[in-house]
Amino acid sequence: MSTQRKIRMGMMGGGLNSFIGIVHRIASYIGEEYTLVGGVFDSNFENGQKFAKKLELDLSRTYADIDTFVEKELALPAEERIEVVVVVTPNFLHYPMAKQLIENGFHVICEKPITNTAAEAMELESLTKKHGVSFALTHTYTGYPMVRQMKSMIAEGVLGKIQKVDAQYYQGWINPVIHDKEKRAGVWRLNPEKAGQSCCMGDIGVHAFNMVEYTTGLKTTKVLADLNTLYEDNPLDIDGTAMCQFDNGAKGLVRASQIATSEENNLCIAVYGTKAGIKWEQENPNYLYFMEEGKPVQVLKPGHEYNSELSAISTKIAPGHPEGIFDSMGNIYSGAAKAIRGEEYLEGAFPTVHEGVRGMKFIEAVLASSKNGNVWTEIED
Amino acid sequence: MSTQRKIRMGMMGGGLNSFIGIVHRIASYIGEEYTLVGGVFDSNFENGQKFAKKLELDLSRTYADIDTFVEKELALPAEERIEVVVVVTPNFLHYPMAKQLIENGFHVICEKPITNTAAEAMELESLTKKHGVSFALTHTYTGYPMVRQMKSMIAEGVLGKIQKVDAQYYQGWINPVIHDKEKRAGVWRLNPEKAGQSCCMGDIGVHAFNMVEYTTGLKTTKVLADLNTLYEDNPLDIDGTAMCQFDNGAKGLVRASQIATSEENNLCIAVYGTKAGIKWEQENPNYLYFMEEGKPVQVLKPGHEYNSELSAISTKIAPGHPEGIFDSMGNIYSGAAKAIRGEEYLEGAFPTVHEGVRGMKFIEAVLASSKNGNVWTEIED
Amino acid sequence: MSTQRKIRMGMMGGGLNSFIGIVHRIASYIGEEYTLVGGVFDSNFENGQKFAKKLELDLSRTYADIDTFVEKELALPAEERIEVVVVVTPNFLHYPMAKQLIENGFHVICEKPITNTAAEAMELESLTKKHGVSFALTHTYTGYPMVRQMKSMIAEGVLGKIQKVDAQYYQGWINPVIHDKEKRAGVWRLNPEKAGQSCCMGDIGVHAFNMVEYTTGLKTTKVLADLNTLYEDNPLDIDGTAMCQFDNGAKGLVRASQIATSEENNLCIAVYGTKAGIKWEQENPNYLYFMEEGKPVQVLKPGHEYNSELSAISTKIAPGHPEGIFDSMGNIYSGAAKAIRGEEYLEGAFPTVHEGVRGMKFIEAVLASSKNGNVWTEIED
Amino acid sequence: MSTQRKIRMGMMGGGLNSFIGIVHRIASYIGEEYTLVGGVFDSNFENGQKFAKKLELDLSRTYADIDTFVEKELALPAEERIEVVVVVTPNFLHYPMAKQLIENGFHVICEKPITNTAAEAMELESLTKKHGVSFALTHTYTGYPMVRQMKSMIAEGVLGKIQKVDAQYYQGWINPVIHDKEKRAGVWRLNPEKAGQSCCMGDIGVHAFNMVEYTTGLKTTKVLADLNTLYEDNPLDIDGTAMCQFDNGAKGLVRASQIATSEENNLCIAVYGTKAGIKWEQENPNYLYFMEEGKPVQVLKPGHEYNSELSAISTKIAPGHPEGIFDSMGNIYSGAAKAIRGEEYLEGAFPTVHEGVRGMKFIEAVLASSKNGNVWTEIED
Repeated sequence: MSTQRKIRMGMMGGGLNSFIGIVHRIASYIGEEYTLVGGVFDSNFENGQKFAKKLELDLSRTYADIDTFVEKELALPAEERIEVVVVVTPNFLHYPMAKQLIENGFHVICEKPITNTAAEAMELESLTKKHGVSFALTHTYTGYPMVRQMKSMIAEGVLGKIQKVDAQYYQGWINPVIHDKEKRAGVWRLNPEKAGQSCCMGDIGVHAFNMVEYTTGLKTTKVLADLNTLYEDNPLDIDGTAMCQFDNGAKGLVRASQIATSEENNLCIAVYGTKAGIKWEQENPNYLYFMEEGKPVQVLKPGHEYNSELSAISTKIAPGHPEGIFDSMGNIYSGAAKAIRGEEYLEGAFPTVHEGVRGMKFIEAVLASSKNGNVWTEIED
Repeated sequence: MSTQRKIRMGMMGGGLNSFIGIVHRIASYIGEEYTLVGGVFDSNFENGQKFAKKLELDLSRTYADIDTFVEKELALPAEERIEVVVVVTPNFLHYPMAKQLIENGFHVICEKPITNTAAEAMELESLTKKHGVSFALTHTYTGYPMVRQMKSMIAEGVLGKIQKVDAQYYQGWINPVIHDKEKRAGVWRLNPEKAGQSCCMGDIGVHAFNMVEYTTGLKTTKVLADLNTLYEDNPLDIDGTAMCQFDNGAKGLVRASQIATSEENNLCIAVYGTKAGIKWEQENPNYLYFMEEGKPVQVLKPGHEYNSELSAISTKIAPGHPEGIFDSMGNIYSGAAKAIRGEEYLEGAFPTVHEGVRGMKFIEAVLASSKNGNVWTEIED
Repeated sequence: MSTQRKIRMGMMGGGLNSFIGIVHRIASYIGEEYTLVGGVFDSNFENGQKFAKKLELDLSRTYADIDTFVEKELALPAEERIEVVVVVTPNFLHYPMAKQLIENGFHVICEKPITNTAAEAMELESLTKKHGVSFALTHTYTGYPMVRQMKSMIAEGVLGKIQKVDAQYYQGWINPVIHDKEKRAGVWRLNPEKAGQSCCMGDIGVHAFNMVEYTTGLKTTKVLADLNTLYEDNPLDIDGTAMCQFDNGAKGLVRASQIATSEENNLCIAVYGTKAGIKWEQENPNYLYFMEEGKPVQVLKPGHEYNSELSAISTKIAPGHPEGIFDSMGNIYSGAAKAIRGEEYLEGAFPTVHEGVRGMKFIEAVLASSKNGNVWTEIED
Repeated sequence: MSTQRKIRMGMMGGGLNSFIGIVHRIASYIGEEYTLVGGVFDSNFENGQKFAKKLELDLSRTYADIDTFVEKELALPAEERIEVVVVVTPNFLHYPMAKQLIENGFHVICEKPITNTAAEAMELESLTKKHGVSFALTHTYTGYPMVRQMKSMIAEGVLGKIQKVDAQYYQGWINPVIHDKEKRAGVWRLNPEKAGQSCCMGDIGVHAFNMVEYTTGLKTTKVLADLNTLYEDNPLDIDGTAMCQFDNGAKGLVRASQIATSEENNLCIAVYGTKAGIKWEQENPNYLYFMEEGKPVQVLKPGHEYNSELSAISTKIAPGHPEGIFDSMGNIYSGAAKAIRGEEYLEGAFPTVHEGVRGMKFIEAVLASSKNGNVWTEIED
């Protein structure tokens, strides 16, 4: 149908037992702007087919591997071809798959981490420019309406000059496995071959970092980090703190831990400026605390007339009916849809490949700082 | 395809400008168990077609009216025919449409209020039995995992004998319109012809009532109610309280207001028994407060091993990533899917037609009590 | 010393094992405006003396009974004589003692309940006028700075016209004793001879009622109440609800319970007007929630420049160091000190005898309403 | 009177316009265990006398200076002599006065900071041993019942082995003065001559540090700190972070700021162990969050049977009536009273001179670390 408006979406990974695949599919359904057409849902072709059957997809669009995917899809007329591909494979495949997809003209929505190295991320960034495709990195938390409200308010200058930033992401999930040698040996996030250079900072510290740069618009210029493990046979960090310096001269902290026993996803951020402070917590995402000097604390919620445009477009329902993490991810998909269609979109509507580059640079700087004796380490823009 | 597993879903209403239609569609997408096939999306056929086009549906399954819908769908082979129909039309059509659908063998998912009268609701209940179809009434809040946890725990007896119940649903949305004669004359919820017998009790008081019976398993046997308006030219209640007596001898309250200025959807419930108390709030739905005599308050959250089965199946993600109102509605759709497929399901997996009957009886008793001078009024089982 | 500035204070009751005596003494110490000189600390003279010794008081000012107290103190020169007497005896003695003290020219600070009947309270009120003494009734919660802030803001008109009030006082302390026949037989609060006409409404419902009239300035004109017990051999109410009508036409609720298992002192109040709503909770007394139509919720705290004068004089320390219930009682003592010294004081600086009259009228109306079949019952001004 | 039981208390400083003097006096009144007898209330003798008159003290016990105080009090018989002296003078006088008092056999209760240097604090510690007097340092927050509950629970082992500690003290009070050159020049806390070596860490960072060692029983062995100012003409730190290592191998953070705009006294601590985590916040001091692995979060409050002995003796009233900062200080005075009387007391009943030593060592290590390029710096035990 030539007037088709929904975006034809493919997927790499995300098959039968993938948790993250569900999150992305739901996010794509919520705004009714995408149609899942096909993909490579599993490294095992048969499992991929089974999965496609379960979802009642056209089996001819379920492929054995990315090469076949690219070949066959490119062979289709443009108006039938999959336009965007969601990459939700194991981490080490993000970079090569994203690269191949970009080079063949597909838009990409990619799960975090974008790559294993900053260099790879930079390469992807330059490839997206070269090939004119859009790239959304699913830093999910940036989709929450009150995070977007926070970004808008800070951009409007309500804080004055920022003078202190403190972001935290504390989890306790590693506690039940870390104290047993066999158990911890079996955790893929603790295995450098599967998880890459970092566990805690790469997985969650980077979210806190992203939250800082996304909401404040500041660039982190230097970090002094200390990364920790509890056992010598565990090579990757499971806890760490990065002291930060920002391009406006302010200082701050990115704190992350996976041994904060019984914490679930305690990501929170506080930003303090010359005029006011502002705070947000992921586990209660529909509240934003705005603390103007000398005035009562204001608690902002989604869906009100006082919300910024970026926040308002990220809310589907009247005030007082809480939306959650899937809605947040859905907002990122809605933002990316605009980019894919070539429409205008608000700054911050979805996290771009550049945020992936920033995150990888942060991770590498933090690792270097910690390894080199907790020294201040620069992050290039 | 004969192995098709998704349920073929139709919709009455829910077209272009319908807010509630979106909520139901998202709920149906979330579990990946339904496919929207067609329906009567708008009383204006052209608008209905436009809408179907926008959603890229097969236009031949978009009908001009319910009669055509029934005729054409019944003419299709059973394995292609729409199985369940979602009724999200204006309120006064819920009853006749549901009736017609049930009588023709369609399963029904119906927006609240189920009907205008208790007698109609009872008729629907007996028709569902006669025709062997399932009927889900979307009392959305019963889909929250911690409401379900509360239900399970009370059923397990953690409270001992219940001795006091207090449920509240306070909103302030009427405040900006109620004080201006012209404005309030234009509000459909305040118009008896459109809104039925009651505004506040019918729209939100019944949610608080449903929450009481859903979570406690008690039956309300008598009410003494006082319903209020602020202006004489406003015939429907916009505020009210019902003192309640329950079948175990306990007493309680259902309190509702739409003039609680600046409240959003402040629905909350507290149940106190001989051993413990338990509390929940809709605006922070992922927290359940369990207060055992003499012990620290316990704060339960979704997704943990300590959650009941009914709660556990109502959570899609690991602890600490909040789910919201759409997920809650999605849980009801998932429960209804089991019934539609003839599978076993847990008690409480979705609100049934019987909960609709109870709600209508409550509303009628409350109205009668208030009208007759705030006297105790029985609610038959 | 003729320039003596501290108020000479005496006490009826409050001796060795009295909990409430400690509360009052601490309250009197906090502002450094009172000196405890003597009194009748115990019905047993020896115990009273022991207690006075422990506090290192002048034993010659510790008397055997109130008659001796009055006789001996009146015999002293005015500049040595005890000026104010704190009455913290068992409830049934409040009225006769207060009466005798007033008639002999002593100022009185009296624990709640003021009397057993409204008639007695009215008599005390008229006696205070006749004898020109001040009378403070320690409705402790009115001393909290944010309750006072609430009162000031409502008086300033920030809510517009009040259209709904809801006050609650829920406790669970009776739960562990109420279900055992012997245990409940031994509880003085459940014994009409000791506790008077009412248990729950008289002890805590009246606090919620007082909070309503204190903060809003409204007068309650009618109540429809339902009071409950769990067992037939328990003659006094342990739970109840009063629907209320106010002199401005608004309606509201006073809800109280002592069977709300595991609740501690969950007193809270919400007042909604045409322009805004406002809420306060006793267990988190340093937060006041102001909800203006269409704006973010404002959370006010004590000690800021934005606080009203009545609130500001009720805070001793910079913002962010929480004060508690003793400080609240201390504020009432500070307010009463001004009255005792004949200085000007702000309206609301301490609860007066008239608030005692209002409370007793409320209790009697509620009891009558419930007894007479839950009918609307007037409360005279 | 030979059976006198109250402790005779003197005071250095704390006169007419002293805020901190009031706090200490109230704390001494609350438990009814101290009598304020005299002191040197002001460096100006006349003002000191005026103040004593206002409090109706015996003017012969109000002295012109500490030398006279010591001489005259020592000349009195032991049973009349002031036993303990509260030092609430400007900071630079804490050390010399405390020294002189100890050397003359007076017990001391001293405001924070104990001294200007760790060496001085150590000298005081050894003097108290030599002269057999007790010394209480008013780290006020350690008096809160739930801080004490936390200490008891950790000591009982409920956390297992501690693996992460994070303590914060954020304030915003400097924000309104720091950005104006003249204003900040006039702030004594920013003046090294008056405030000593440090502003932020010395004033509040040390509270967070003390909270860590008090509650966990761990010793901090090393710190890596970064201290910040916003302007070059401001020599003292107004913000800073100390990464910490503890004697059990765990790591943690002490974070402090006075430029956290609009924060009041946001002191909070989280401690995570192998079995559970535990959290507390100063601004809501009556809640303690205990998070056992895999279980619902438990919220503990004061006054319950489940409270530890150390917590139970720190609560004066039934559960649900919040106590505050003055009560907390009062608990420290009650603990010190036992020591002064030579009675047994629970470990943690009041902060001792040794906690002062630890605090000064921490401050000096933090300053050294920051100055020397953010290097790990040892803290001797």
